[in-house]
Amino acid sequence: MRFIVVVGSTRTAAIDGISAAGADPELMRHTPAADAEIVEYGRPISALKMPVSPTGCPTPAVVTRAVHELVRPDVLVVDAGLETPTVAPTTVVGTEPGADIRDSEPVPQANDVFETARELGRNLPDDELIIGESIPGGTTTALGVLAALGEPYGVSSSLPENPLELKRSVVSTALSESGLERSDAAGEPTLAVEKMGDPVLAAVSGLATGTVEAGGSVTLAGGTQMVAAGALLRHFGIQTPLELATTSFVATDETSDIESAARALDFDLTVTNPEFDRSTHPAMEGYSRGEAKEGVGMGGALLLAAREGIPMDEIRAQSERRYDSLVDNNGS
Amino acid sequence: MRFIVVVGSTRTAAIDGISAAGADPELMRHTPAADAEIVEYGRPISALKMPVSPTGCPTPAVVTRAVHELVRPDVLVVDAGLETPTVAPTTVVGTEPGADIRDSEPVPQANDVFETARELGRNLPDDELIIGESIPGGTTTALGVLAALGEPYGVSSSLPENPLELKRSVVSTALSESGLERSDAAGEPTLAVEKMGDPVLAAVSGLATGTVEAGGSVTLAGGTQMVAAGALLRHFGIQTPLELATTSFVATDETSDIESAARALDFDLTVTNPEFDRSTHPAMEGYSRGEAKEGVGMGGALLLAAREGIPMDEIRAQSERRYDSLVDNNGS
Repeated sequence: MRFIVVVGSTRTAAIDGISAAGADPELMRHTPAADAEIVEYGRPISALKMPVSPTGCPTPAVVTRAVHELVRPDVLVVDAGLETPTVAPTTVVGTEPGADIRDSEPVPQANDVFETARELGRNLPDDELIIGESIPGGTTTALGVLAALGEPYGVSSSLPENPLELKRSVVSTALSESGLERSDAAGEPTLAVEKMGDPVLAAVSGLATGTVEAGGSVTLAGGTQMVAAGALLRHFGIQTPLELATTSFVATDETSDIESAARALDFDLTVTNPEFDRSTHPAMEGYSRGEAKEGVGMGGALLLAAREGIPMDEIRAQSERRYDSLVDNNGS
Repeated sequence: MRFIVVVGSTRTAAIDGISAAGADPELMRHTPAADAEIVEYGRPISALKMPVSPTGCPTPAVVTRAVHELVRPDVLVVDAGLETPTVAPTTVVGTEPGADIRDSEPVPQANDVFETARELGRNLPDDELIIGESIPGGTTTALGVLAALGEPYGVSSSLPENPLELKRSVVSTALSESGLERSDAAGEPTLAVEKMGDPVLAAVSGLATGTVEAGGSVTLAGGTQMVAAGALLRHFGIQTPLELATTSFVATDETSDIESAARALDFDLTVTNPEFDRSTHPAMEGYSRGEAKEGVGMGGALLLAAREGIPMDEIRAQSERRYDSLVDNNGS
């Protein structure tokens, strides 16, 4: 088993009010690079500060890293196209961030990224991948891809109040700028990513495709972005079982309807509740307010911890320790 | 503690008869990329075949990986400038391979690579680094750097018969093409690397410098290339204790005089004998004939295993298993 985090950027994240994956728009640009460093080193290095939401909710990378410290899985960060460089070790499958999906073709490199990631997935020595992601703005591009594929599911949000009307309006503009009607890319996953997606979706679907082709199994670790990745796989013609591992924060989000998506797309859904409401620690408070919810493979990390028999209170304690060391590191 | 392998290339390796770090010159170009993949994944991916010497002695990456499978340290591959790409996850500190040292300035990027690696060393969360390397032709560039610094030590070889006369002749030509006399770069380590070295020496000395500056400790894991790296540190003015961990194959090589170098340069030398002569397995036969000797941090891996109390017969057994799986993978 290998735990993979695919990182990348889309300029869609710069649309005002669309994402909480950073304290402000400038810091948000660094979030995926910093998440990669937290996963690999336990703390951000190139970006210096731990990514937090505008109200201070820490990145789910803290929880994923805490689980990794307890379980020590093999880890691989895949760079699908970062806007700011990272000093985390990465395997690069794409070098360009995605443009704003309201451009006519925001991800012209989608097929190259998909094929490079597919080749990597075919060749990795592992019989199982757990694949998470970090890309601010990713739920909006996920909504765009779902629309292009003609899949009717909604998406979740890193914000407590999902700006779903804004996302729908962005997707609507993006479809028309791309010359697409809803469902026009059904059965054409590469087109859907080129016109409406982001580099991370291209890389996740490529990695998963290659792994399945080599006889391995895949757990998509995340929320509605991973629903979009899984939908891309189904539209690519992949019919093998796919696991989807997410958190209770996504599953109870009414705007996401992840359970019906999983049923319709034939994903085996695992929802894990980390019971953060049992803690009043600042690492977890934001989640109880409905912030962040998922990301950086958090749901997959919680699944992995459960498999290894690690009690949830140990994960919470380790997450608190990791957060505290990061806050000290932030100098705050 | 983090186990680092710095990989890179120098066109010096293409000089006929200078290196055994590949079955033939074309395959040798892929050796550092393949070594990185063996360390990270247990097998080569992009290069497909396990690097072997012309007579079939496997890369020391097999032994380093075997130890890692038993100890599971944090691992980081640093790319200082590879000639062929790798799909191992890497942190990139340089993007250009070094030219043949008989060029007037084979490593013009030496200072950039050094400073990028120094910054990385300063910022890594670890209080200790064990640093190994993989760069075919690296003992010749090491001899070049030692000459430029005015250090009188010889270097070892991946060949059973060290082509020391050839190396000396190459270094002599390189000095004159660079407009340098022996010792002209004493106290000027960057100049020594620019004119006579390779990108890996720049990265290793930069990482070590940054780590020491941040209060951490460094074990240079390798043979005479690491003597050159350590000499660069001394000429940079670093006076803190430095560990040098190598194998008995280097220590008993009369052409290397690593023990007197360690004394003179004030390195705390650890020599580990993996007792490969107790085995007739093809993974180890070549070492008993005097091939390979060191590389990919093998001496540091053996030191790490000893620290963790892992018996040498277990390391041999794991190395044999790893080799057997790679030979199957090679389709031979």
